[in-house]
Amino acid sequence: MQAENYNKRTLMDYSPDIKVLDCTMRDGGLVNNFAFSDDFVRDLYEANIKAGVDYMEFGYKASKELFDPNGFGKWKFCDEKDIRAVVGDNKSSLKISVMADVGRCDYKKDILPKKDSVVDLVRVATYIHQIPAAIEMIEHLKKKGYEVTVNIMAVSKVNSDDLDAALQLLAKSSVDVIYLVDSFGSFYPEQITKLSQKYVETADALGKIVGIHAHNNQQLAFANTIEACRMGICLLDATVNGMGRGAGNCFLEALLSFLKNPKYNEIPIIRFVEKHMLKIKEEGVVWGYDIPYLLTGILNSHPSSAIKFLKDKRTDYTNLMQELMDMD
Amino acid sequence: MQAENYNKRTLMDYSPDIKVLDCTMRDGGLVNNFAFSDDFVRDLYEANIKAGVDYMEFGYKASKELFDPNGFGKWKFCDEKDIRAVVGDNKSSLKISVMADVGRCDYKKDILPKKDSVVDLVRVATYIHQIPAAIEMIEHLKKKGYEVTVNIMAVSKVNSDDLDAALQLLAKSSVDVIYLVDSFGSFYPEQITKLSQKYVETADALGKIVGIHAHNNQQLAFANTIEACRMGICLLDATVNGMGRGAGNCFLEALLSFLKNPKYNEIPIIRFVEKHMLKIKEEGVVWGYDIPYLLTGILNSHPSSAIKFLKDKRTDYTNLMQELMDMD
Repeated sequence: MQAENYNKRTLMDYSPDIKVLDCTMRDGGLVNNFAFSDDFVRDLYEANIKAGVDYMEFGYKASKELFDPNGFGKWKFCDEKDIRAVVGDNKSSLKISVMADVGRCDYKKDILPKKDSVVDLVRVATYIHQIPAAIEMIEHLKKKGYEVTVNIMAVSKVNSDDLDAALQLLAKSSVDVIYLVDSFGSFYPEQITKLSQKYVETADALGKIVGIHAHNNQQLAFANTIEACRMGICLLDATVNGMGRGAGNCFLEALLSFLKNPKYNEIPIIRFVEKHMLKIKEEGVVWGYDIPYLLTGILNSHPSSAIKFLKDKRTDYTNLMQELMDMD
Repeated sequence: MQAENYNKRTLMDYSPDIKVLDCTMRDGGLVNNFAFSDDFVRDLYEANIKAGVDYMEFGYKASKELFDPNGFGKWKFCDEKDIRAVVGDNKSSLKISVMADVGRCDYKKDILPKKDSVVDLVRVATYIHQIPAAIEMIEHLKKKGYEVTVNIMAVSKVNSDDLDAALQLLAKSSVDVIYLVDSFGSFYPEQITKLSQKYVETADALGKIVGIHAHNNQQLAFANTIEACRMGICLLDATVNGMGRGAGNCFLEALLSFLKNPKYNEIPIIRFVEKHMLKIKEEGVVWGYDIPYLLTGILNSHPSSAIKFLKDKRTDYTNLMQELMDMD
């Protein structure tokens, strides 16, 4: 469907296929260790409903065997009771999402059958070498009754043959959505054009759709997201004020104002920024475009070195650049 | 030449036609009232030479009849002696540029014959209704011996017929470069694709080239600049750390690292950021992407309302949005 439609759309128009997923609490949780106030979470839920956002991701389903619950905010684990404390039975049109990392989630035990959960969507995050394990998770979660996506991380480090093989395997699985993920914010729009085409063609042939998750290292998260959208990708990730690890993500407020579907309204999100985001920034929570992230983006590296560099209050950017090149 | 070449380039490759213009002091001067320290200017000049930048713009040639020299830093006026105090006779490969606004520059008197000046390039900034006056300036400056560009401002407010007519007139003038200028940062890359095509086709037919000057209201300045570059625009404006009015401009350090021409090197620019930009930011000089600028970008408005909003330390974004809609 999407492959037929995408080149007919104009900027005045909209495609009803396009959906938006807010992952502020999940990617943003990596910035503040998932320590969101209950007020923040409740207001974000309400804002997303008013804004017409399609999915809201509450956090991770991380293994409590691997991660000590005392060391993180509750949204690293997303217990059913914690989500229900915010959404009740979720009688709204906003669907609820959680992310589960391959190898870091006790999904058989911790993810309930869909009939007992308010969660609608589980997103399986995987590295390329974990694809068989990801597929096992996907089939398990589909049988439990969920919508399921697979998010192949760090594809900017993956060679084309491996990626093609992974996409073929995933396209034959029961997964609903395959995600193009620019973990290191290293892709330029021209590369997104080609990758989107590859993902959409493979997925479309087997009736699946494609999503995009972009990072803002080179200040291209929004540009790459709308380029992907132009190429037929129709599940778009964004976060309020771009909150997310390192350089952060595509800004939800910019994305909603770009999409012309009248069901979307950026004003509730902007109001949420006024009330909550300015405050947590003042309290010292830091994310967003900065030279160290530009450098890891350019050099296609994990943002962790840049995060540490900034935490150490260093400003010797050119030394960081040399360190990054030595690591490669 | 460019129209033939542009679709052959890959991201591994580079086009030798592409040139970069640093307008940190000119667009950034609008942020700090042109109050750059002599150290800043000298170091920027040296950094641009080392980085392989093609042009450095020192500021405006503003009329001293209209603007009181005591009210601004010297780079609003760019007296020959002030430029020479930095560059001497400029024996480097870096060319010197100044900007002259139509109707706000006593160009007959204040711009010397080229043989008496170290300035290489004069950029004529014009609104669409001033095109005949701009052409008079262009012809005068060409006769004086300069390279000349024309920068048609605020084209996002101009209707297509008027723009076509203006481009035709300018293509027939003696101007060397016609600039696509996104003054309000309101264009999406898809619009830049089409506009670039229009500008390049018109200019190319008469042996002229096209430049781009983007603003970062929607965090698209870099994306729009490289999209224009892909479409055959080959004079690219950028500023160090994106310093420029309101949301600022395309980041020079990101642009240089994108361009694969080995003559470019972003390290001297990054080193300049370490030494000077962090300091002036700490001193309270403010620019860059922020919600008020996103709103003026979305609504295709002059950034002045957003600048005032931030200066007044307001954060009631949704009221600003209503005010902007009432102004239209």
